This record gives sequence, C-alpha cells and structure tokens, in this order.
Amino acid sequence: MTTFEQVLIGGRWCASLDAHGSFRAEDPSRAEAIGPAFPISGIADIEASMRAAIDAADALSATPPERIADFLDAYAAAIDADADRLVALAHAETALPAEPRLRAVELPRTSHQLRLAAKDVRDYAWTDPVIDTQGGLRAHRAPLNKPVLVFGPNNFPFAFNAIAGSDFASAIAARNPVIAKAHPSHPETSQRLAQLAHDALLKTGLPAAAVQMLYHFDNALGLAWAGDVRLGAIGFTGSRAGGLALKAAADKAGVPIYAELSSVNPVFLLPGALAERGDALAQEFFASCTMGSGQFCTNPGIVIVPSGAHGDAFLAAATRLFAEAEPKVLFSRGVQQNLVHAVNDLRTAGAQRLTGGDAGEGYRFQPTLLSVSGDAFMAQAQALQTEAFGPVSLIVHAPNTSAMQKIAASFEGNLTGTIYRASDGSDDDAWHALAPTLRTKVGRLIANKMPTGVAVSAAMNHGGPYPSTSHSGFTSVGMPASIRRFTMLQSYDNVPEHLLPTELRNRNPGGVQRLIDGTWTNNDIA
Amino acid sequence: MTTFEQVLIGGRWCASLDAHGSFRAEDPSRAEAIGPAFPISGIADIEASMRAAIDAADALSATPPERIADFLDAYAAAIDADADRLVALAHAETALPAEPRLRAVELPRTSHQLRLAAKDVRDYAWTDPVIDTQGGLRAHRAPLNKPVLVFGPNNFPFAFNAIAGSDFASAIAARNPVIAKAHPSHPETSQRLAQLAHDALLKTGLPAAAVQMLYHFDNALGLAWAGDVRLGAIGFTGSRAGGLALKAAADKAGVPIYAELSSVNPVFLLPGALAERGDALAQEFFASCTMGSGQFCTNPGIVIVPSGAHGDAFLAAATRLFAEAEPKVLFSRGVQQNLVHAVNDLRTAGAQRLTGGDAGEGYRFQPTLLSVSGDAFMAQAQALQTEAFGPVSLIVHAPNTSAMQKIAASFEGNLTGTIYRASDGSDDDAWHALAPTLRTKVGRLIANKMPTGVAVSAAMNHGGPYPSTSHSGFTSVGMPASIRRFTMLQSYDNVPEHLLPTELRNRNPGGVQRLIDGTWTNNDIA
Repeated sequence: MTTFEQVLIGGRWCASLDAHGSFRAEDPSRAEAIGPAFPISGIADIEASMRAAIDAADALSATPPERIADFLDAYAAAIDADADRLVALAHAETALPAEPRLRAVELPRTSHQLRLAAKDVRDYAWTDPVIDTQGGLRAHRAPLNKPVLVFGPNNFPFAFNAIAGSDFASAIAARNPVIAKAHPSHPETSQRLAQLAHDALLKTGLPAAAVQMLYHFDNALGLAWAGDVRLGAIGFTGSRAGGLALKAAADKAGVPIYAELSSVNPVFLLPGALAERGDALAQEFFASCTMGSGQFCTNPGIVIVPSGAHGDAFLAAATRLFAEAEPKVLFSRGVQQNLVHAVNDLRTAGAQRLTGGDAGEGYRFQPTLLSVSGDAFMAQAQALQTEAFGPVSLIVHAPNTSAMQKIAASFEGNLTGTIYRASDGSDDDAWHALAPTLRTKVGRLIANKMPTGVAVSAAMNHGGPYPSTSHSGFTSVGMPASIRRFTMLQSYDNVPEHLLPTELRNRNPGGVQRLIDGTWTNNDIA
Repeated sequence: MTTFEQVLIGGRWCASLDAHGSFRAEDPSRAEAIGPAFPISGIADIEASMRAAIDAADALSATPPERIADFLDAYAAAIDADADRLVALAHAETALPAEPRLRAVELPRTSHQLRLAAKDVRDYAWTDPVIDTQGGLRAHRAPLNKPVLVFGPNNFPFAFNAIAGSDFASAIAARNPVIAKAHPSHPETSQRLAQLAHDALLKTGLPAAAVQMLYHFDNALGLAWAGDVRLGAIGFTGSRAGGLALKAAADKAGVPIYAELSSVNPVFLLPGALAERGDALAQEFFASCTMGSGQFCTNPGIVIVPSGAHGDAFLAAATRLFAEAEPKVLFSRGVQQNLVHAVNDLRTAGAQRLTGGDAGEGYRFQPTLLSVSGDAFMAQAQALQTEAFGPVSLIVHAPNTSAMQKIAASFEGNLTGTIYRASDGSDDDAWHALAPTLRTKVGRLIANKMPTGVAVSAAMNHGGPYPSTSHSGFTSVGMPASIRRFTMLQSYDNVPEHLLPTELRNRNPGGVQRLIDGTWTNNDIA
C-alpha cells in the first residue's frame, strides 16, 4: 500500500481517509519533482475536517482573548526559530531567492503579522464596541462561530500561506477555526508550518481542531465545499477564474467570501516626473516587474507613458533592462502556460512585442515588454487588461493628460494605481485631472513608488473594486481591518450587564476604544 | 393619451419615457383603488436614471460634507413641516394608524434618522481614518462614486422608504447618488417625500440628479438592473424570494447588495419569567405580534414555551387575547395571499391551529396562533420556520432547557432572538445553556422585551446571519455602521499631504476620531 504524507484533521496528523491519488512538489528551476508524495483529499477528509471544526467552534469562541494571543505569539516565535528549515523548504519548492526575499523579508513579515494579530486580540481592537447606555443597547463584532476555509496562493509560501498568512491570522484572531487549503506548489513548506501551528496550539491549550490543513483536492470538491452553508466564511487569494467559480458557489449558499482575484496595477508616468528622473524610473519599473519573477498580485502590469522625447528615453532604457535580463523562473508549469496564453492574448488584442515573450528552460520565462498606442488600447480595453502573471508589462502610449484620464476611466477594478509626479509640483495639474478617476478604480493610490511591496500596516488596503477583489469594502492585509472580515455584528438589547461579553460591560477591560453614547473613550462606564 | 404621475429622473419631474402601463394605490381596509395612476417604468426610465446618476456621482463625491449635511437637515425639516399631509397619505395607502404609529413614531423617527446622518457626515464618523505616519500610508472610507439603487419595503412608508429611510440616508451620507425604487403599495406617500427631497436638493445646491425615483417596474427589469456593473451597491428590504433573486443577479455582476430578507424572531420564555409574570408576558406578546397588523421584520413569529402549568396558563391567556381581537388590515392583496399560503404551509408541516387562521373582509386577517410540540418542530424545523408576515405566531412547546437549546440550534439566521428571564436571576443557568446557541443565530439578542421596536441607535444591529440578511457583518439601522455599507476602502501610499482628502491631512478637520500610529486620537499630526 502506498503511503502519503499525513493531513492535519481533527487535531491530529493522520493518513488521508480517502486520498484520490497524490502529488509532489517540483523544483521549478529544473521542472523536476522533489520531496515526498502528498495526498489529494476526497470528500471524507473534507467532511471530517468540517465536523471537527464545527465542534471546535464553540470552545474557540469562548476562549479568552489572552489565550488566542498566546497561540499567535507562540506560533510566530516557532516560525522565527525554524527559519533555516522553512526557508530551505520554500526555496526548493518555489525557487524564490532565499536571501533577501524569503529569509530577510517574507518570513519576518509572516511572524510579525501573527504578532500584530496577537496585539489586536489583546486590545480587542477588531471588536468595535458601541454602547448606548440610555437605549440599553450594546453592540460589537464577534466570532462567526463557524469554520473559515482559507485558500492560499502560490506566490507567498509564508506570508499568504493558508496556514500562516493574513487570512489565517485574521480568522484565528476573531476566534474562528481555520481549515487551510495549502497551495500544491509548496506542500512541504505548508506541512512544516502546520506542524509548528499544531504544536503551538497544543502548547497554549487551544482546541486542537482549531487549525486543520489539507494539501489538495479536486476543483469540483472545492466548489461543492464553498457552497456548504456550515462554513462561516472563505478567504481566497488566487486566480480570477478559480476565485470567481468559488465566489459563485459561496454566494449561492450565502457564505461570505473574501476573494483577491486579479489586478494589472496601472502605473501612470507624468511628464514632469519623466523629465526629472526617467532613467531612475526605468530602473524602478524593471526591478518591480521582475522581482519574484513578477509573480505578485501588485505587479506593475500596465505602464502609461506620455508621448515625447522623455517617454521615448524611458522606454528605451526599460526595454534595454528587460532585454538584458536573464529568464526568470516561474512557480510551475501552470503559471508558465498561463503566462504564454496571456501574452498571446495581449498580442492578439493588438499589443506589439518590444522584447521577450518566450518561455525558457524549466519553468522560465523571458522578462517581457509589450506596447500599444493609447487609441489601440481604448479600442480593446477589456482584452488588453488581461492579467499576465509573471515578469511582463504592457506599455500604453498616451499623447496627453486627457488621454491618460480616458485610459484610467476604462480600467476595471484594481488593487493599486500609481502616479509618478515631479517633485517640484509641476505635474500637479495633471494629477488633479487624473487622480480622481484612477482613485475610484483602485484600493490603494500610490505616488512615486512601484506597487509591489504591500506593507503590513493598519493603513494598508490590499483590496479594491470588483473584479480585483470580491468586495471593495475589505482588505486582506492590515489589521484590525482584515480581522473584521471574519466576524459578525452582534447587538445586545436590554441584556443585564453580568450576561454581556467582557468588552461590552461597564468596566473597560483595559484600554479598549469604545463608542459610548456618541463619544469615543477608553473609560469605564460609571 | 393617458397621463400618469411623473417620475423623478435626472433632476426633474417628467413623464415616464416608456411606461408599460400603470397602477394605483389601494385603501387596504376596503380593497379599493385610490389616488392617481402611477407609471410602471420600462428600460428607458431605468437607463435615463442610471446615466443621470453616473453623471452626478463625481460631483457628489466631491461635494463638501457640510453641504451634504445641510441637505439631510433640510429634508428632515421639510418632512416634519409636512407631517399632516404625509401622515394622511400614508394612512390612506397603508391603513396603518395615523396615531400613534405614523405621526408620533414613524415620521419623527424618519426625520431624526436623517438628522443623525447629517451629524455623522459633519463628524466624518463613517470615514474611519487610519494613518501610519512612518509607513506613509493613510486610509479611509470613501464614496462608491457610483449609483446606489434602493428598494423600499411595504411596511414602513416613511422610515424604510427608499426615498427617505435608513438606506437612503446612509447612501447619501456617503455621497452616493440614490435611485429609489418606491414600493408600489404607497406611491403617493413616496411621491410626496420625493418632492420634499428634490426641493431640499435644489435649495442646498446638491447635484439635482443625486436623488431620483421610479415607482415600479417589472421583476425581470429589476433583476437585469441588479446585475448592472455600473451600480455601486444595492439596498433592499423585502421578501426572501425577491431579495434572493436580486442577490443572485447582483452577486454575479460583483455588485454589493445589502438585503434584509426574512426573520421569524424566536422568543424563548424561561420558566422563572413565566412563573413571575406570565399574564403580563401574554399581553406583551399579543401586542407585539398584532401591532401594525404584525407586518414587521421583527415580528415574534415563533414563541418557545416551557411545559408545565405556567406555560399552559400563558398560552391560555395569549390564545384568549388573539381570539378576542378584531381582524387586522394588511397592506395588500399580495400580503394577504402570502399569509394564507404561509399559514397553510405551517399547518401542512404539522402546526395546529389554536385560534384564527382565516382571511377577512378587504385585506384583513384574523390574529392567529398555531402550536406544535418540540419534537414535531424538530422533525420539520425548516418548514416550520416559514415566515408568516402578519399577525401570526407559532407556539413551540419545549419540555426543558435542553430541548430549547436544540430548538435554538435548528434555527436559520434571524434578525433577533429574545429570551425572557426571571428578574431574580433564577433563570440564569437556563440563560447560560441557551444564549450562546441563540446568540450565533441572531443579529440582536434581546432580554425581557419583544423584538418589535428597532431603536435608531449606533448600537443597534438590524441585521443578522444569512438568510435573514445577505451578510451578517452589516446593519441597515444604526449609524455610522449603516453608512459604511455604501463606501469603499481607499488607501493612499506615499501621497503628498496636499493631495490627500481633508480627513487624512495632518490637521484634524475638527474632532474626527482617527487611528494614528496605533493610537486613537482626535489631535492634529504635528
């Protein structure tokens, strides 16, 4: 009998109940399988994890915040302590650079995010208590008391991992059990993280089934699961096609889904900025578009360049940088194939090749620049917004600010939109003409900085209008806002004080900001 | 040529562009048509109102908060000043009592709600500014910059009217244009409100197309409209069937919809409370279930009564009150027919008739009590949760607290759940056994009070888990939370201060609560 790696169900590591076959990770730089065989779960694993999570939900809802925070801190510490091993695993499975990306940036970001969640748990920061003493009404945000299913993406083996990233930390902070669907492109990294999470759970006394993980299942099972009314919510980061299919299933069942779907992250270069520092901008653009092999949700996929000598010089410099660069390793054959298709689709829609455009050895792809006139873009605006996930960007030529404004108006919802402006204020008229239109199309409006690099900050918005995400009111990065996705609003009407939750009682549990009779305060109620 | 009443499109009163026929209001007490003929709009009216709203969106987004607040205040004052006429119209169209309901309760509630919206606009209360000075990130909530379509219900001609209620006030407060779909059961009341709103718009200088109104259109057109990606959001209060159809269309297009759908509002009577004041509870229950002819979203549709002498006495008293009451006038033939069907469905599922059960003259219906054993309820829990919109309630007998807990666990999502407990604390063990289960099923947990009566308060939650509403994270009553439904999250990254919105600049525009570098404050940034 073949044995596969164990899944984490019901608080213990166990053999898959009904593996439908198996899969292995690959070294993307060689396109060769590595590591052990992981099971592809069937309905029995899904049902067992759902039942265990449902059972764990009540206990977890009633767990004191301090204990939840202790778990998050313990897990963060375990990740930091295990950094060597985690980085080695993730590097092998993703080909992302061990330094600085994995070790110096992504791993510390991941543990930092867990610690921020712990802090917000201790401060009750996500609970938004509102008290009306005259009306006898007290409201706050509370756990969903149901399992949260998290689908992790391929492109952040730590920071967006379904078992360690922002969706995970947010759902646990709100005291909901999490069932993590690891991404099959980095199963051993996910396994190691799940081991650390599980150990931290046991150490801090949380219900053991509060955290579960499956590696993989068929799409059809995933869609059926997304429509399971027993779910409290779904967090998803991934492709638009996959996300929209899950969203349709979840919507039908009334299950809230927070899906981050796709974005081309338009970057507008205003004439003054180009005149001031066109060469430096070409460097910034090249670095942003090719870092991590361009496999970021916030990759600059479209750059709008004004006509004229400065625009031409920028383009020449950028084309040279792209042309001279080595092919970049992508995560998987699927990513490579999708990128080939996307580039073909863009060319079919009218984009011209400036450099690159071809797949290479292993799962490599050449850094690629395409270009199109403003008029041609407007004529095929929908098709030319196809996301090319990888080191690819489309240059759109714009004769003037008015054309830029029209191009901005044609965009679908995006995570980010960037405007580069001159430091002397000479672009400010153009800014005022362009920014209001771009503003309504994007979750984060950026000045003079490339969109890659999503800071972990309470003022971050890693979200945006549909179809960049499923709902423009939410962010997947930046606590406490990201935690609120996994909560429900609950009001207490005429309920005696001793029967209320801690943060709604007269005595402030300690520094909690509350809206009491129209005034924000962290005082007790007399 | 037949002339119908005018619609409000593009900032002016005009004939419907493509009326598909007409309808008239009815006096529900006589089942006779009254008042003028109102047009049933076609696609041309819809398209014209959409274009006008889209044109108005930019100007409205950029309107200073003070001017928005002035409009809301002016509209509120106009409603108060026109109370005699409004109450006469609404009474004629709905048969709701002029006093106290319409004049003393609902009309003042409506103008009060508009004034609260004005206050929250002046205070920037819904914008939630978050500033990270080190990270150069500043985030807040902003207008959707797209039209909001509001569907009003039949049961509140003022307070939930699509042109005057909480959805309207909330969407306008967030500086979004509103297209109101009036409810066809009170067109003349809606027309008068729209006249007052339009006058107030002109007086305060808001874009005239910021507020538009149609009276009626076919369901198929409504569904197509709900799926129009040009919409910013939809607010809906009404039937579950209608709301779910709109939700499916909106979900598919990625249009956020906030739908309040249905609720049976379970009321649990604990033994100590019944022993203490069973007769008074029967009175309270009867009053709550028959007030407004029982046509409330928060009507107590299911009452769980413990076995024993006190439970029997309560039931006898309640049955007597229901039996002795006059038939109640419903809003329309449709409401009457739906109620006949719902009562039949409940009886088919096993409910026994205690009293009432029949339709009467005009659109009347007898106050009706049904009953079922706890076991029979559990066997048909889904069918016995059918909402009977009107003066009807189902008594469920429960032998003990454990049975009550199981019944609570079987409930779908509801707006409210109520527990009556003894004032001496003798029911507290039962409370602790029952409340955690009921809590997760309802938006508002109530002690010792009937669920009808939704206070306008920042700590109110008029929302609840699916399928009582479309999303358990939102409320349609209670500002500023209700306003946030009609906003998008926007972050500014590295944007110079002079290019930021007012409430994100260093200088606090005046008393605005902001989260700055992890600390809540209304100070300026130095």
